[in-house]
Parts: sequence; C-alpha cells; structure tokens
Amino acid sequence: MSLPVSFLSDFGHDDEFVGVVHGVLAKLAPESRVIDVGHGFPPGNIRAGALALVRAIQYLPEGVCLAVVDPGVGTSRKALAMVTDWGYFVGPDNGLLSPAVAMIGGASRIVAIENPEAMIPSPGETFHGRDIFAPAAGLLASGEATLDDLGPELSGDEVTPLLLPLTESTETTISGAVWWIDRFGNAQTNIAPEELSLIGLSPGEVLTVRVGASLHNLKWVTAYGEVDDGESLIHVDSAGLMAIAVRGGRAAEDLNIYEGVSVTLARTAVVEK
Amino acid sequence: MSLPVSFLSDFGHDDEFVGVVHGVLAKLAPESRVIDVGHGFPPGNIRAGALALVRAIQYLPEGVCLAVVDPGVGTSRKALAMVTDWGYFVGPDNGLLSPAVAMIGGASRIVAIENPEAMIPSPGETFHGRDIFAPAAGLLASGEATLDDLGPELSGDEVTPLLLPLTESTETTISGAVWWIDRFGNAQTNIAPEELSLIGLSPGEVLTVRVGASLHNLKWVTAYGEVDDGESLIHVDSAGLMAIAVRGGRAAEDLNIYEGVSVTLARTAVVEK
Amino acid sequence: MSLPVSFLSDFGHDDEFVGVVHGVLAKLAPESRVIDVGHGFPPGNIRAGALALVRAIQYLPEGVCLAVVDPGVGTSRKALAMVTDWGYFVGPDNGLLSPAVAMIGGASRIVAIENPEAMIPSPGETFHGRDIFAPAAGLLASGEATLDDLGPELSGDEVTPLLLPLTESTETTISGAVWWIDRFGNAQTNIAPEELSLIGLSPGEVLTVRVGASLHNLKWVTAYGEVDDGESLIHVDSAGLMAIAVRGGRAAEDLNIYEGVSVTLARTAVVEK
Repeated sequence: MSLPVSFLSDFGHDDEFVGVVHGVLAKLAPESRVIDVGHGFPPGNIRAGALALVRAIQYLPEGVCLAVVDPGVGTSRKALAMVTDWGYFVGPDNGLLSPAVAMIGGASRIVAIENPEAMIPSPGETFHGRDIFAPAAGLLASGEATLDDLGPELSGDEVTPLLLPLTESTETTISGAVWWIDRFGNAQTNIAPEELSLIGLSPGEVLTVRVGASLHNLKWVTAYGEVDDGESLIHVDSAGLMAIAVRGGRAAEDLNIYEGVSVTLARTAVVEK
Repeated sequence: MSLPVSFLSDFGHDDEFVGVVHGVLAKLAPESRVIDVGHGFPPGNIRAGALALVRAIQYLPEGVCLAVVDPGVGTSRKALAMVTDWGYFVGPDNGLLSPAVAMIGGASRIVAIENPEAMIPSPGETFHGRDIFAPAAGLLASGEATLDDLGPELSGDEVTPLLLPLTESTETTISGAVWWIDRFGNAQTNIAPEELSLIGLSPGEVLTVRVGASLHNLKWVTAYGEVDDGESLIHVDSAGLMAIAVRGGRAAEDLNIYEGVSVTLARTAVVEK
Repeated sequence: MSLPVSFLSDFGHDDEFVGVVHGVLAKLAPESRVIDVGHGFPPGNIRAGALALVRAIQYLPEGVCLAVVDPGVGTSRKALAMVTDWGYFVGPDNGLLSPAVAMIGGASRIVAIENPEAMIPSPGETFHGRDIFAPAAGLLASGEATLDDLGPELSGDEVTPLLLPLTESTETTISGAVWWIDRFGNAQTNIAPEELSLIGLSPGEVLTVRVGASLHNLKWVTAYGEVDDGESLIHVDSAGLMAIAVRGGRAAEDLNIYEGVSVTLARTAVVEK
C-alpha cells in the first residue's frame, strides 16, 4: 500500500524543478498520490515555508510530507527523515519541518539521510530535492524503505528548531508581528485570540491596533459581512490567528502592512502613539 | 466509483491555499483524480473565472466541478451545489458557475450547502474553499453524499446569474468588447463569427476593426500562417470567438488592447473614426 | 496498462490552458498519471523548453512525453509523434523535442500527426496542445492508438533539429555562453567539466571567468560550503554543466549575468581583459 506524498518547496513554477521531483516520486512510488502543498514561497525563505506547512498539515492526508526550502544545500546541514503520528517528514535540517512536526505531536524517531544507496547519484551538490529528499520520500511512500534504511538515528535535540517571534503582553496590550501577507492582501499576525481573552478583549469590540507607527480602530468581527465594503477589520482567520483585513480590499496595501512589521492590540484608547 | 474533480480558483500559487484544498479532497475522496483547471485568475475576478470555466468545461471529464472565486466570503452569499447532465458543480452563489452550467444545459437540481456535518469546523469564516466547498465536492465525488445531504433545495431563479456584456449590431457593424487577453497577448472578443455572417462578412475578407479609439484593417484568416510574421490579424479562436492576434507577436501590446476595451467590426471603410 | 504522461509547455498558470490539456488527457487516458514537468517557460521560447526537457527526461517515468512550445501553430510546421527507448514523444516539429530525443538515443520511428480521427475538432487553429497534441498523447498513453494510427511516417532527416550554441576551445581557454538562469539566480553555462579537464583545469583551482566584459576569479568547488556566505564560485551543477553561483546570493544579479551572455573560462591570469 502506497502512502500519499505532500510536497512543499520554494522551487517556483518557472523551471522544471518541481516536475523533476514529481518524476523521481513517480518512478519510486508509482501508486502514490502526490499533493503539491505549494512551491511559490520566496526562494530560501525557511520561515515562510514552515508557517505554510504548519497551517496546512492537519488538512493533508496522512503519509509522507516532503518539504524542501534549502538555502544550506551543499553545506554541512543534515538531511532529515522523521516519523510522527501523522506519518513521515523528509527535508533539510534547518527548522523548516520543526513547527509542523511539533504540532503533530513531535517525532518518535529521527534519522539523518546518509545512505548513498537511498540517493540518486548526481554530478553536482545543488539539487538535493531531486537526489536525496525525493528518493527518501518515494522509498518511504512505497514501503521500499524504513527510516533505518536511510541513515543513522539522531536525537531530537540534534534537530534544528525554528525560532519564531513570540508575543509580549502587558495587562492591557498584546504585541506581536505580522508574519504572513496572503494573496488577497490579508495580514496574519502571530497573536492568538486566547491571548486577547486573557486581557479581557472579545469579539464585537473595537480594538486599537498599532501597525508599525500607524494607529487604527478596528472592529473585531467574526465575518467580513459585519462591516461595510471597503472597511478594515480584525478577526480570527482560517488558521486561528488574529488577522487584519479589508472587506473587498487589500489590507496590506490599504493600511501599509508588510511581513515582519510590529503589531500591538489593545482596548480602544489604551495604546498611545 | 469515485468521480474526477476539476478545480478552479483565484488562489494563486504563492500560498498553500490550492494545496490545502487538494489535501481535503484527498482525504474525502482518495480515489478521485483532481484536475487543476487554473488558479491564477485575478483575485476576486468572478468574470475571469467564469469565462475560463465556460471555455474549459466541455474538455473536462464528467464528474465534479469545484470553483472558488469568492470575494463575498463571510457575507450572506450562499454556497451552492448543483447537478447537471455533465455532473456536479460546487461553488459560491455569485455568478461564477452560471455560464458553464448554462452551457451544459442547466441544473436539474440546486441546493444551498448549509449542513454543518458536511463542512469542516474552522476558527474563521474566510476559507470556505477549504471548509465548505472542498468537503462538499469531496463527498459528492466519493459518493458519500448526495445533494440532499448538503442542504435545502433552491429554485433556479434564486441563483445569481453572471451579467456579461452583450454585442450590438447594425446593418453593417458588430460592436462588442475584449473580454480576455491570454498569456500570448491574444485578445478574445465577445463577438461570434455567426454575427459577422449575418452582416455579410466572411473569412478571407479584410475587416475594419476599431479597438477603443484606434482603427485597424485586419484580414480575417483561418490560421496564423496566412499572414506574414509580425502582421496582425483577426480570426476565430479556439473557443469559437473572434480574436485579434499578431503572428509571432503580442496583439495586446502591439495594438494597445486591454480587457474591457470596446471593439467594432465592419467591412473595410464602413467604420468611421 | 496506461502509460504515465509527462507534460511540458509554455502555457503558464494564469489561464486555463494547462487545465484543459489535463482534461483531454483524463478523458482519453483516465488511468494515466500526468506529471507537469513545467509550464512557466517564456512564451514561444523553444530553446528554454528544450533545455528543460533534456535536463529532466532521465528523471521522468518512461511513458509519453507531451511537450508544447509552439510559436508556429497555425503555420505549416508539422505535428510529430515519435517512439524511442524511453517511450513516446509528442509535440511540434520545431526542435523542442530534439535534444531530449537525442539524449535518449534517438527515435526509432517518427510520424506526422495528420489523421483527423485522432484530433479534437475545433473552431480555430490556435490550440493544437488541446486539439492535436493532447489527443495523440492520450491515445498513445491508453494504448488506444499506435504511431501508425496518427499519420504518415517521416524520416529522421525531415525532423527539425535544435541549433544550440557550441563551445570553442583554445589550448588555455574554453568559451561558451550562459543558457539558463534558474529561480535561485544560478547561471548555467553550456560548458562541460570534461572540456576543462582537456585544458588541464580541475576542481579546487581558482579559474579566471570572463562573463561578457567582466572578469572574475572564481574557485571551482564541488559544494557551496567550500566558500563563505556571499562569495561567488563556479562548479558542476545538478545537470552536469559548469555553472556560476553565489553562496547565499544570486549570481545573476550579483555578477550581472543574463541568458545568452558569453563566458570564457581559463586558468587564472590567462584571460586578458
């Protein structure tokens, strides 16, 4: 029985990189369904890939997760394969897999992919997606290999974590950052609604929202329809995080929000300029 | 027996939206083939998605059509599931599905998707593609649900139509608009060759073509090869509509044509500046 | 038994072209797996598509290769179907398929696709990907047709080759060109490491590299990790060709390299400005 493979990368759609990985998977696991989680993440942006994976993982069919955002290819960074309650994770040891693996409950076993027999020989050391990660994913998906066939075991503390910005709270404010602007111009923060509850804020209230140096009064709604077209709002988005949006518009451009900008949320009039 | 699912959206390829919908479909209908009709339509552009769907539908395998261009998500717009001679259509009630459903011969039964048991619970009301439309499509594709399991029946006149610009004719002219510039710079109009026949025009003739404020004399050819490289032309395109092209060039840039610009076709010298 | 189909085109991801071809394949070969090799090649750029195909072909599962970069659609250029040791190749007769077919060992039989019964009737002569190439690929993949069902046989010398720039060597230098800038800004040349061996150069040396009018001293490394972050280098890339890269950077922008620019490699201090 072949496992489905969910594949995420920063390979983009202008070259044949994604297609070649699909080819390797099709040769090694011809019965496996392959799902493209996304390949348009900014080249080398580990955090963008990791955040997408953590948002996506619970919706993907259990099986093999192959993720390659790998600015350290050709250096000493390890190649990882892990097993979790969800299934296998395969990718570079740079933090890319860590948040999703943690959300799934952690890895019960981790190996470094080092066995040359599990790799495709290559003239160059630049396309480990094709030569190392896809073969490992394909062999695991088809059942042709187990973790033990790939390389030596690692302990969990040998794996690189992903350092994500934390939120900070006072008695009246929660501060964090925007960590994703999506295609529709919505700005997802790293602030959870539970944090707002702890300082006494709840849906229906108008919050004072500082984004960088700008102040906005935004209603905390549960659906876009609660404000008028063109009006800005704050709400819990589809990943369960506080996000700033504009009904029928693009918050990023309309309110000058960009990835990484600081955000502070508070009861109206509490935040000072 | 699982039905194939054809999936169109405006989700783009920079985020994980398309991949997450594939994940939901793979979980609910693991045997269904999923065809990506296209996801690069401009965000929120219902007409662009609807026109692509009507051009594509006859080439897609009968089964389930899942289409999500949904600027009204989080408002009172309904979620629709319909059955037609081609198969099922699932998507928002905003006109997106209407031209394709009409071309297929109309829907014999329509429901509003309202049954929470057919949805994925979500923290936010912004990703109905994942939480409402994909589950409905997956359940219909796998045969786990019928329309009756999704929600209450609607009558056809409760469904939002798509208002498309009509052509206007005089005894000597047909006027319409450009409604698609494709990747190759070709400009498709909403004018059918049959309309030109009615005013006595036929292939091989040189037509006077007014595009916005510019006049061109263009030969009505049946293949690019009938004009020289770099020469502009008018012809019946692969969707059966009059289109302006440049052999070896890009009509959009070369002749300054854009989506929505007005077009008038006539026998040479009939149109005045 | 259905064959997998590997599909490459310049159709991009903004329209429904790729999806419609998938639809045609799904109707004709419902059991065939379809692999998207890539669709983002510059419109009409036969060389870019051909080079991607030759880089990819050995990693794709044997079966049917459908490739459509077809600026000559609607002219007298032929539509080809060929059989090789790898499997079938289907595409326009413009050189697109030639390097990959040559790499596979050449075609043992070639036909021109001319049988109308193997095509989809169409109102226009602009979308042969949908109307001619996809049907041929689908019929070959499903086993519903053999080459003989598609049209008359051609001899190998009737097929259009792809003219690629050759390298030139002196006793101390090898000159060629950059023929691919990838998503990560790496610059692949058409120079093979074997050519450098012939003039006595080997990995570990610092080469003098002239790119256009600029001179660089670049170490020939076997992995990025041999230089510091931000440092430029030359190496054998994943396709086995000499390529210029910057660890943690983008050679294209950092060193002002573009597709087609001339490149000369030599032992340090041999090349003059």
